[in-house]
This record gives sequence, C-alpha cells and structure tokens, in this order.
Amino acid sequence: MTSNNGHTNGHAVRKINFGAGPAQLPLEVLESVQAEFLDFNGTGTNIMELSHRSTAFAKVIEDAEQDIRDILSIPDSYAVLFFQGGATGQFSAVPLHFLNLKPSQTADYLVTGYWSEKAAKEAEKFGKVNWVIPKGSKYQDVPDEDTWKLTEDPSYFYYCSNETIHGIELIDVPAIVPKHVPIICDMSSNFLTRPFDVTKYAVVFSSAQKNFGISGLTLVILRKDLIEKTCNKSIPTILDYKIHIDNGSMYNTPPTFSIYITNKMFNWIKQQGGLKAMNELSHKKSSRIYEIIDQSNGFYINSINKKYRSRTNIPFRIVTNGLPNEKLETLFLKQASQLNMIELKGHRAVGGIRVSLYNGITLEQTNILIDFMRTFQTNNN
Amino acid sequence: MTSNNGHTNGHAVRKINFGAGPAQLPLEVLESVQAEFLDFNGTGTNIMELSHRSTAFAKVIEDAEQDIRDILSIPDSYAVLFFQGGATGQFSAVPLHFLNLKPSQTADYLVTGYWSEKAAKEAEKFGKVNWVIPKGSKYQDVPDEDTWKLTEDPSYFYYCSNETIHGIELIDVPAIVPKHVPIICDMSSNFLTRPFDVTKYAVVFSSAQKNFGISGLTLVILRKDLIEKTCNKSIPTILDYKIHIDNGSMYNTPPTFSIYITNKMFNWIKQQGGLKAMNELSHKKSSRIYEIIDQSNGFYINSINKKYRSRTNIPFRIVTNGLPNEKLETLFLKQASQLNMIELKGHRAVGGIRVSLYNGITLEQTNILIDFMRTFQTNNN
Repeated sequence: MTSNNGHTNGHAVRKINFGAGPAQLPLEVLESVQAEFLDFNGTGTNIMELSHRSTAFAKVIEDAEQDIRDILSIPDSYAVLFFQGGATGQFSAVPLHFLNLKPSQTADYLVTGYWSEKAAKEAEKFGKVNWVIPKGSKYQDVPDEDTWKLTEDPSYFYYCSNETIHGIELIDVPAIVPKHVPIICDMSSNFLTRPFDVTKYAVVFSSAQKNFGISGLTLVILRKDLIEKTCNKSIPTILDYKIHIDNGSMYNTPPTFSIYITNKMFNWIKQQGGLKAMNELSHKKSSRIYEIIDQSNGFYINSINKKYRSRTNIPFRIVTNGLPNEKLETLFLKQASQLNMIELKGHRAVGGIRVSLYNGITLEQTNILIDFMRTFQTNNN
Repeated sequence: MTSNNGHTNGHAVRKINFGAGPAQLPLEVLESVQAEFLDFNGTGTNIMELSHRSTAFAKVIEDAEQDIRDILSIPDSYAVLFFQGGATGQFSAVPLHFLNLKPSQTADYLVTGYWSEKAAKEAEKFGKVNWVIPKGSKYQDVPDEDTWKLTEDPSYFYYCSNETIHGIELIDVPAIVPKHVPIICDMSSNFLTRPFDVTKYAVVFSSAQKNFGISGLTLVILRKDLIEKTCNKSIPTILDYKIHIDNGSMYNTPPTFSIYITNKMFNWIKQQGGLKAMNELSHKKSSRIYEIIDQSNGFYINSINKKYRSRTNIPFRIVTNGLPNEKLETLFLKQASQLNMIELKGHRAVGGIRVSLYNGITLEQTNILIDFMRTFQTNNN
C-alpha cells in the first residue's frame, strides 16, 4: 500500500504536503472517515447530515471535549469551547471580553511576527494596546525580556507561541510577566505538538487546521472565573464566551463535520502516545531539518535566532555567493514537486522555502525531504 | 442499489432524514465526495488538506461563486461572500454595518417566529430596533400589512423568509415596504428552493446546512454600494463585509471543506434544472404533505395560516378528541423510525411532528412518508 513517496490507494499517489495549513491529515484518519462516509456509526447517514442536537453528534462533541481534557489535563475550572471564525475571530473576542478587565484598560501585546501583529491591530479597534517591544520588520529574533515595556497592571498579556510565517516559537510563558497577569496565547501553529501547563494561561486558543483537524473550527480553553468579571454587553453572539459556555458550544449550529474530524484527531493523538509522543516526533523532525540547514555550509540559511527556532514552521533561503538565489529556489520547488512533495513555497512576506512539520507529517516523510535536500545541495552547490 | 426506504451501500440502509438541519445531502453528492476522498482532482490529497491559497481550492471557491451567480442571475453590483458563524453571525453583522445607515438610526424588524426574534434581539445590542408587529407567542400567522408600524425612513427593513421552527414562509417581499428602504432577508431555510429577484434586496443571507451544504458556512449576497455608506470602525474582522469583499472571502482561512461541499451542491442544483426544478420539487413535496394533513379530518393538524404555510418546514400535531395526543405522536416517531425515517420530532417550542423538505429530500422519499402517514391514521383513528 505504501510507496516510497507516499501512499497509493489503487489509482493515485498521496502527496506529502508540507504546507502551512490547512494541513495534511494522517492517512488512517482520512481512511476511517471515508469508510463511514455513507453510514456513521450505524446511523445510516453521514455525521454532517445529522442534527447537532442528535444523540450521535452529542456523543462526538462530548468525546472531543473529554479527549482534549485528558490530553492536556485541563482542570474543571477551565471551559473547553468550539468556535467558528478561526484565530482571527479570537483576535476580536479576546479584547471584546478582556480589554477593560483592569483599571489600566490596557492590554500588553508581545508582537513577534505577522499573526501577533494582526492580533494587536485588531485589539486596537476596541481599546488601548501597549506594544511590549517596538514593531519589527524582519521578525527574526525576540528582544531580551529586560528591554520589554510592560504596563504596570495590564488587563492581560498577549502573545503568539508560534509565528507560522516567520518561524519563531516561544516554548515557555515569558518569565518576566508577573504571575497575577492573565496570559492569553494564540497557539494556532504549535498546539498539541508538545505538553504544556494549561493553568499558566487565562485563555489559550488554536485554529484546528494545522495540528488537529480542518479549517472552520477554533478551540478555546478559558479560565471560567474571568468571564464573571467582563461587562461588555455588545459582544456579537458568535464571539461571546459566556453564551458558548452556557450552551456547550451549541447556541447555534456548530461546524459539525470539523468537530467530528477533530474528535478523530484527538483520538489519533492519544493512540500515538499523547503529547509526549507528539513532542518527540516534532523534535526529531525539526531538528533533522535544522541539522541539514546548519551543516550545509551556508547553502541553506534559516535566519531565526536559534533560541526561538520553530519546530513546526521552518523558513529557509537557498543562498549562493551570499545572496538568496530565487532561480535555485524555484528549481527546488519544482524538483520537490516531482518527488510528490508539495506546498513548500515560503510565504510572500519572507520568500524562499518553508517546511511545515505539523502532527500529520510522519518522520518517514520528513526523511524523504531531507534526502532530497542533501541531493539538491550536492547537485547545485 | 436502491431499496424501498433508502439506499444500501452494501452493509447499511441509508436513512431518510427529515430533520430541520443540518440536513440530508443528495446521495450522488456524498458518493462523489467519498470517491475522491484521498485524491481530489489529481492533487493527491483531500481538498480539506490543501491550502486555501492553492490553485485547486481557488478553483473551487471561484466555481462556487460563478455557479450561484448563474443560478440566481446575481448582477455584478452585488458581492457573493462566504462567511463562518451561521445566520447567527449575520444577526450581528447586519446591525453592526447598517443600523445607523439613515438619520432615523432605527431598523424595522418584522418578527414572525423564533429566528427573526433572535435577530431583532441581537440587533438591540447595537442600537435601536422597531418591532413592526407586536411580539407574538404562537407565531401561527402574520398580521395584515396595514396594521404594521413602520419607521418613517428606517435604516433597513429586516425579515426572515422562512421560520424553520414555526413553519411560516413569506414568499414575496412585503409590498408595504417602500422601494427605497434597503431590505435584508434571512433565507436560511428556504434559500435555493425557488427563484427570486436578488435586486429587490440589499442583503440576503443563508446558512448552508439546509438546502446547499453543511454547517460552518453562510452565504451572503450584498449590494456593494451600501458598504461605502457604513462608518462603524469597530466591526470584528470575521463579520466585516468590506474586508470579505476586498479579499474574496479569504482574508483568513475560510471553511474550505464546507465551501467544497457547497460547490458540489450548486452543481447538483444546476444539473437538476436549477431553481425552476427546485421550486417544482419543493411545491410537489410540500403540497402532498399538506393534502394528507388537510384531508385527515382533523387527525393531523397544521395551525399555520394557509397563506403563510412553509414549503420546507411543516409542523403538525396528531389530534384525538380535539387535543394533541403526545402518546400517538411518540408512536408515530417510533414507527417512522422503524421504516428508516428519522429526525421527525417537532421543535420543543412547538411540539408534535415536523417534516423538513429541503432540496436533498426526493419526491420518492416524501411519498414513503405520505404512505406511512395514511397507514398510521387508518391504524390509529
């Protein structure tokens, strides 16, 4: 069934998709969905044709919540919510609920790349935002914490734990932020790739389409007591945390098929060995790619401070005579594609190549890319 | 392949799903999705694994837009937008954009049931709403237009063309509303079941999961010139019409799989003969059910004014000795289920039985229900 470059289902080779998202799903998850496509669990329908109030779907969403509570050891004092609207929806929901939580009426935003910049600008629509570090342009590093300008008692501190476009990852909560400050984190591109302590956060959110599902679904984990302290009565219902909590994420029709896929992905992560296994896999895959880059004598260059190199998104340039060589990069993409490796083009803001290594990418697939990178360098150095 | 009660795929009988939504999809649509589940169109992936910026997905969303423009003859002066968040999202987006469009700073809401009531209450979060008719409780009729209290020059006039729970349908734009007033309509439960003139409306919206897809997607058709007149700078991005127009509904990752299914549904509708065919089908199915009800000598009762009876949602009670007989209704649901007909239970606000007849329900399937209704009456009268 499995070929060197992917998987054949009798008539086509499965590509290896290194894209930044929506991302590749594990083949076994896809096959399981396909097998029950006309009859989910004896219902005689596809799950996406069933009412969200049906017993069958109720079990799907309850299982999904329980699984993620198990996977992350989420305590009862936190709500687990399923939203529509992507991380972009949460960029609004967060300030709409919490910007005026403290008398300072100011939120601290650590802007380390494209997505935290978007979040900060969205928050500015609704109130006062303090940029903790000066606006960057290249986003290849994070200034030392002792240079950060923090608000005395901010309503919250916001950051993005992994910048998908720039490839910057902050593994830990910044130590300089005082314990009493609510910390809000966008984990959209590294959620469920490693264990973390939920209780360090006030709110964690992540869109599903990178590490645990498909687009159209955003998971929000939220400390429930915070909700009692908000006073904004003009929050659109689809962004309202309290309404979602009170209605088990089913005030209105949720994205049922996306939740069903996420339920499968949570199951798959558990079967793989949970976040410990995901962490090991993520570490192995990314460190091998960085090794190739660092041992290439400057043929491949990743410009991110090593301390902040992302495990899930690795942008790099192909360099000859000290300059990025776009012609070689185009050739790289073309030859990779001929070997069934797709979606490797870097974001236009950065250029070059980007390798995204989400949960759905196997070690075997990563090794195929590594072999190709080696050969490509030998042939073009 | 086809059994009397549905369809067998070798191991299971497909149920007939008369639920109010998410609703049954045409079997041929499901089978086509299933067939390409591991390889969409030669891409070697499922469409839901691909970037929304990929050539393959760009073609899907462009085709979907072109198809709906063809189906409804939508002129270029209107935008076609794909949103997340359901009709509930639009309940906020509409007043956030248009409540202060005119000096009256008031919107007229015609509340004819559960969903238009929800919309009016959501709008009240953001400004002044005039209820055109007094708040009803049973919602079995619409008061005569000459009793309506309209605002002199409202920012817009809002109504819901089909109340899914109460089974009230307004086929035409109310004649009493002056031509210059922007008309905004929630068509979530009868969209694409009949032709209509888009140019009579300022905004039309519909969630996809009833007549043209699955949950997680909402289609918005909007007169573009209206957008230039709005001045609210604090609209959450995921509800912002201008941002969606400027970015072809791809400012952030759209619900790609839901859009793909909707693309298939638009194709299917075209193949069936477009809205003329959908209208005939809808008329045939619903008039046969109403016939059985009206010829039952009061065994089945639908209490909606005949002028406003919905073609897509038919609530009825089973009545003995002049009173709803819940025991018989339970038996009806049980026996229907044994014949593979599911999701017939009425909404808790109304009770009894509800038959939803969206585009995915065939005439043959409706006839099976009709036969059962006849037999059930004979056996239990």
